[in-house]
Amino acid sequence: MIERSSIEISLSDIAQKSGANAALVKYHFGNKDGLLLALLARDAATEMSNLEYLLAQPITSTAKLKLHIAGIIRAYHRFPYMNRLIHYLLHETSAGSADEVSKFFVAPLLDFHRRLLAEGVSRGEFRKTDPVLFYTSLIGACDHLFFGRHAMSRATGVGPVTDEVCRQYIKHMETLICGGILTQAGEAIAAG
Amino acid sequence: MIERSSIEISLSDIAQKSGANAALVKYHFGNKDGLLLALLARDAATEMSNLEYLLAQPITSTAKLKLHIAGIIRAYHRFPYMNRLIHYLLHETSAGSADEVSKFFVAPLLDFHRRLLAEGVSRGEFRKTDPVLFYTSLIGACDHLFFGRHAMSRATGVGPVTDEVCRQYIKHMETLICGGILTQAGEAIAAG
Repeated sequence: MIERSSIEISLSDIAQKSGANAALVKYHFGNKDGLLLALLARDAATEMSNLEYLLAQPITSTAKLKLHIAGIIRAYHRFPYMNRLIHYLLHETSAGSADEVSKFFVAPLLDFHRRLLAEGVSRGEFRKTDPVLFYTSLIGACDHLFFGRHAMSRATGVGPVTDEVCRQYIKHMETLICGGILTQAGEAIAAG
Repeated sequence: MIERSSIEISLSDIAQKSGANAALVKYHFGNKDGLLLALLARDAATEMSNLEYLLAQPITSTAKLKLHIAGIIRAYHRFPYMNRLIHYLLHETSAGSADEVSKFFVAPLLDFHRRLLAEGVSRGEFRKTDPVLFYTSLIGACDHLFFGRHAMSRATGVGPVTDEVCRQYIKHMETLICGGILTQAGEAIAAG
């Protein structure tokens, strides 16, 4: 999928590329959606264990927040298919797929946001912020850098998402999110 | 589409509902995508003329920014099919549809953001902000309230997007965007 920059692949493409037997791939995953879900579950699990690690670090909540923003944007940039996959599974397929996306991706991430925000508030670094609204704005804004770009790049002056664009967007999102939720104490920490 | 809360409708459904002849609908719009694009073009044109009107008002750039944030969220809430339609046209169909979405929706909105940001900077209310990054974060965050909600609502504690949720999200996005881009002068204006 990375090679083709598309999730439009068939089980037999996958079998051929991996050297596996197409029937075996089908036996394992049932169908293409089953394979895509297994892939999402695997990659999401890696990302979620990174979040647990981040939360346990002996650093300020503000530092964790900034690392998290950069982490999300970098993960989307490194695995562009994750973004397309989530959109595909939410749109194309049964209600069951939306449940799975929720289980592997939305619910753990939202839970992480709840705990990070509560920690930041208890330490006096963050203002009280609704985790669901926070999740929606942060994930929506990060997702859109990758999802909307091919339509945007038809508008004047909008190029592809390069490493440099990612760096700029990380800085932009840090400014918005920190500007929106840090207390004065949090701002003093963010300013170093 | 509003009635069914879905864009999964056929030309003959539309013909039946509108009392028009199915052949005439087909003659006019070519196919379903043609009709959906015509609908998007019509509604987008209305929204874009509202933006021109807003920009010409004798009010501060900060006040325009806040009205714009509320306007986007309310437009998505009022016309839930616009959001689905844009996603559908960007994903499902030919590159030509993405061009049309860009022409009717992305390009005029981005142009509005460029002019509003330039005005705010020239008046000393806004910090210098990249319009493409600004567009991406604002539209992505607003879009996600509606697009991601059905997956989110499978996670604990996340209900549907009611009027009250819209009001809360408008406030949340105002806080993020204003916190991220206003200068001290802009903040003094925002605080009234």
